[in-house]
Amino acid sequence: MTQAKDNNCCVSICHCFFDYSTPKTLVIRSKKVGAINRITQALVIAYIIGYVCVLKKGYQDTDNILSSVTTKVKGIALTNTSDLGLRIWDVADYIIPPQEESSFFVLTNLIVTQNQRQGHCAEIPSVSSICTSDKDCKVGIRGPRSNGVQTGKCVNFNRTVKTCEVFAWCPLERDGEPPNPPMLADAENFTVLVKNNIRFPKFKFNKRNILPHINSSYLENCVFNRSTDPECPIFRLKDIVEEADEDFQTMAVHGGVMGVQIRWECDLDLPDTWCVPRYNFRRLDNKDPTNTVSPGYNFRFAKYYKDSDNKETRTLIKGYGIRFDIMVFGQAGKFNIVPLLLNVGAGLGLLGLVAVVCDWIVLTCMTKRRLYNEQKYTYVDDYGVLPEE
Amino acid sequence: MTQAKDNNCCVSICHCFFDYSTPKTLVIRSKKVGAINRITQALVIAYIIGYVCVLKKGYQDTDNILSSVTTKVKGIALTNTSDLGLRIWDVADYIIPPQEESSFFVLTNLIVTQNQRQGHCAEIPSVSSICTSDKDCKVGIRGPRSNGVQTGKCVNFNRTVKTCEVFAWCPLERDGEPPNPPMLADAENFTVLVKNNIRFPKFKFNKRNILPHINSSYLENCVFNRSTDPECPIFRLKDIVEEADEDFQTMAVHGGVMGVQIRWECDLDLPDTWCVPRYNFRRLDNKDPTNTVSPGYNFRFAKYYKDSDNKETRTLIKGYGIRFDIMVFGQAGKFNIVPLLLNVGAGLGLLGLVAVVCDWIVLTCMTKRRLYNEQKYTYVDDYGVLPEE
Amino acid sequence: MTQAKDNNCCVSICHCFFDYSTPKTLVIRSKKVGAINRITQALVIAYIIGYVCVLKKGYQDTDNILSSVTTKVKGIALTNTSDLGLRIWDVADYIIPPQEESSFFVLTNLIVTQNQRQGHCAEIPSVSSICTSDKDCKVGIRGPRSNGVQTGKCVNFNRTVKTCEVFAWCPLERDGEPPNPPMLADAENFTVLVKNNIRFPKFKFNKRNILPHINSSYLENCVFNRSTDPECPIFRLKDIVEEADEDFQTMAVHGGVMGVQIRWECDLDLPDTWCVPRYNFRRLDNKDPTNTVSPGYNFRFAKYYKDSDNKETRTLIKGYGIRFDIMVFGQAGKFNIVPLLLNVGAGLGLLGLVAVVCDWIVLTCMTKRRLYNEQKYTYVDDYGVLPEE
Repeated sequence: MTQAKDNNCCVSICHCFFDYSTPKTLVIRSKKVGAINRITQALVIAYIIGYVCVLKKGYQDTDNILSSVTTKVKGIALTNTSDLGLRIWDVADYIIPPQEESSFFVLTNLIVTQNQRQGHCAEIPSVSSICTSDKDCKVGIRGPRSNGVQTGKCVNFNRTVKTCEVFAWCPLERDGEPPNPPMLADAENFTVLVKNNIRFPKFKFNKRNILPHINSSYLENCVFNRSTDPECPIFRLKDIVEEADEDFQTMAVHGGVMGVQIRWECDLDLPDTWCVPRYNFRRLDNKDPTNTVSPGYNFRFAKYYKDSDNKETRTLIKGYGIRFDIMVFGQAGKFNIVPLLLNVGAGLGLLGLVAVVCDWIVLTCMTKRRLYNEQKYTYVDDYGVLPEE
Repeated sequence: MTQAKDNNCCVSICHCFFDYSTPKTLVIRSKKVGAINRITQALVIAYIIGYVCVLKKGYQDTDNILSSVTTKVKGIALTNTSDLGLRIWDVADYIIPPQEESSFFVLTNLIVTQNQRQGHCAEIPSVSSICTSDKDCKVGIRGPRSNGVQTGKCVNFNRTVKTCEVFAWCPLERDGEPPNPPMLADAENFTVLVKNNIRFPKFKFNKRNILPHINSSYLENCVFNRSTDPECPIFRLKDIVEEADEDFQTMAVHGGVMGVQIRWECDLDLPDTWCVPRYNFRRLDNKDPTNTVSPGYNFRFAKYYKDSDNKETRTLIKGYGIRFDIMVFGQAGKFNIVPLLLNVGAGLGLLGLVAVVCDWIVLTCMTKRRLYNEQKYTYVDDYGVLPEE
Repeated sequence: MTQAKDNNCCVSICHCFFDYSTPKTLVIRSKKVGAINRITQALVIAYIIGYVCVLKKGYQDTDNILSSVTTKVKGIALTNTSDLGLRIWDVADYIIPPQEESSFFVLTNLIVTQNQRQGHCAEIPSVSSICTSDKDCKVGIRGPRSNGVQTGKCVNFNRTVKTCEVFAWCPLERDGEPPNPPMLADAENFTVLVKNNIRFPKFKFNKRNILPHINSSYLENCVFNRSTDPECPIFRLKDIVEEADEDFQTMAVHGGVMGVQIRWECDLDLPDTWCVPRYNFRRLDNKDPTNTVSPGYNFRFAKYYKDSDNKETRTLIKGYGIRFDIMVFGQAGKFNIVPLLLNVGAGLGLLGLVAVVCDWIVLTCMTKRRLYNEQKYTYVDDYGVLPEE
């Protein structure tokens, strides 16, 4: 008996397992309804295939880029000023610091203050530093804009003006407007070789911006030009600035920041050779004439010397120049079943939405809606408990 | 005949195409079941609309930020030590290197070793360098912690201790604890102007942290303060450190790394003026008192001189200080139909899940389940082959 | 009357609201169909659970890493050349610039040109600089590869060759092949301590690469070794290079760029201690023997001096070396209901696809398809207007 029961139960489960449920369907043969239905379906399917899969490449897994950049600037500049005399500038003089990870700074203009020593001198005249007697100056005061610590004395700055004496690197820098035209105007002809190696770690794909078909002799002489040499990784600084619709000589006066964008958009389902870098140049700092607090880009640095008495002296340089930030970005895509199914699954959900909309149209708007309703719905009433019924 | 057939076939396909299939539905009029159904549906719809669309902005396409940062530090510090005498430090002295891409280092403390020359001197006493005779020292040995190459001699380090002689930059640095209080304690009042230009390339949207409504005269005098001046891009170093719940003077002794986080969370469906940077400050290195192998942040650098004999000498500086890393991050979102449909589609899939759950409740738990089952299911038996049937 | 009507209407809406619709279903009890159905369903569910949820962790919200890196190199090198004599190099000599944000450069080889002064000297012989008389040289010409500005004179370079005189930093650098073996061959034994603090801002999770269970005494002496000391954050430079299948001494001659990759893949649903960094080393620049325009990595920098006449002289160094870029990347995942529901929803959409496929099989391929069709479909014809009907 028990075995028979067990057996029965087993059969039931078995039945259950092999039951295939399919919804009973009412087929309405109507041109109007059919057309509405098919058109909406077509739209959704077109959207899924066209937009998600083809345009947005929803069937691809994506990976972000890892990049390494090295740069090498070449060129010399000649300056002739009363302070420095005739002077030649080479790469060791105008690239500061000599190496950086993914940017480089080219000095284009400078204010030099030579032979500074720690000592006492008259502060540069300003509202807070001009004085008439020692009473106006307080020992130890250091304003946010002052160049040193006040000694409490009021001394002659020149024949007409007296200012508070400060302990500072003397003589003080005459921080006025930078020379215009810029001192290293020759910098516009400097060239920079940008070497960029990229990697998409998820796909184990490496490439560099010196493409395989470029040979050494071409590289020795080429200069990037969007129309004639779009693959040459050697850029003339002036070209970079002009591609961003800026004037090099104007920018060189106060300095600035240029973005050299290298974009790698790689569809790894296509041949490797189609994965090439595209260069774009943009000015990154703001040259908006309003709100120009410390416009451009400059910084101060010093070269330190010792004189014959073993006292430290320095040459202070307020260097204006252009910082070039190499920004590498991009994505690689490769076919992968997961994002495809995610997109298709979501799309099928939308097809369900189509059915809901069509049902509503059929059962409320069509003339034969009463017939359709009768055929579609079977009612089982269970409202016996409702008081109003 | 053939034409008639073709015609027939054509009509069939036509019929097929315009057939609209809608599932036949059993409507159960029961308060219990209805309530369960509607509540679950409401929950799912509320989730889709509320959480995915409103909170997570599932209807937006997002883009990551591209950023460019420049910084400018201002301030002077005065030190007075027996070694260096009275000395003033300005920006060219304490910012090393003078420019970096998105960080800057402020020297706050230092151990100076002046007038180093290549030569022979006694090694700093340690377990491995103390010796009693030349036999204890081997020519050419260079330990991982030694300052030079042993010459094989054992010489007096001072009156009481003998150590192996090394060929090194002499005199050797006395690498002890850094001065406390820190030498450049004044650094807490230095200010830094951070200029940050951002871009969301997908949306061609640019902005900078100096907001359009900020005028120059305000910028000349303002200092960031979370409550009174939250939009001023000029920060006092002490404020940065204190916002991160650290004490500047303590941190200045051994140095450290501070993160200046600029967060841009921009909803580009809203007006541009709502897209503003938010500043946050965090200490990035670990100040955990355990595991303090080389705590803080320091590095060695040297200034090179030539003396009157054209021999190279240098001043070695072990510089402790605070590196400020400017970290810009954030996202922009803008309405886009693709992520919206992806989320809605997935949500509709979940509505299907609701139906499954409700069906199960109705057909197994309700008292009238037998009736419902009869009405819902039509069975077609095809188990003729099953032995037990 | 009106009230009764209102009441009625209210009841109707109430009914409507509590109506529960469930599709009428045809259950086909057939082993074949059932098996096909269940197998496809099982596949889809296995895919959703296995691949999306378990492998791809589709139930997790992810966050990208924020990282801060500091490095400290230790070691000394001894060189002995005719130019420089016996010379010791320590960290202040060979790390240039002394600190960077997330990379460091170790000098391994160099070409030194001492005592350069601004002046006139004969250009290095080349196709464009060799001359026979002053006519071959033009005042003011500066070629892209020249070291200075031509003065218009043709002078003896050595006994046999005459070249154009240039105004430049003289004497000019003899830019040939770098010394082989490299001058700082000892650099292979330098060690670097890499301190890396990471943060996943979305999950407020911090960690650093010096793991909590590592004590100070271990850190003082350990050196990274993939098999014996995989958690030690101190790396010998030679080991880094060799892990990337490169030879240190070969690489040191021309320099190069090494990537030190620190990968944090953290499943924050698991204990924190499972979130550990994994180190990987890769050469980032290309050592491809073809296309070797300026192979390796080098840059020029100078040390500036003033001689007794207060004239500036400099020592120009063309430094070859290895730049180590510390690249920190990784992701953290933590359970979150949104991506889970997104994936499940999309998966359920796929289950709908299964039903479509099975229906098609049942209604077209099975022998009893006529019976099934009859049971499944009810037709309502509305083609009265179609001409052929």
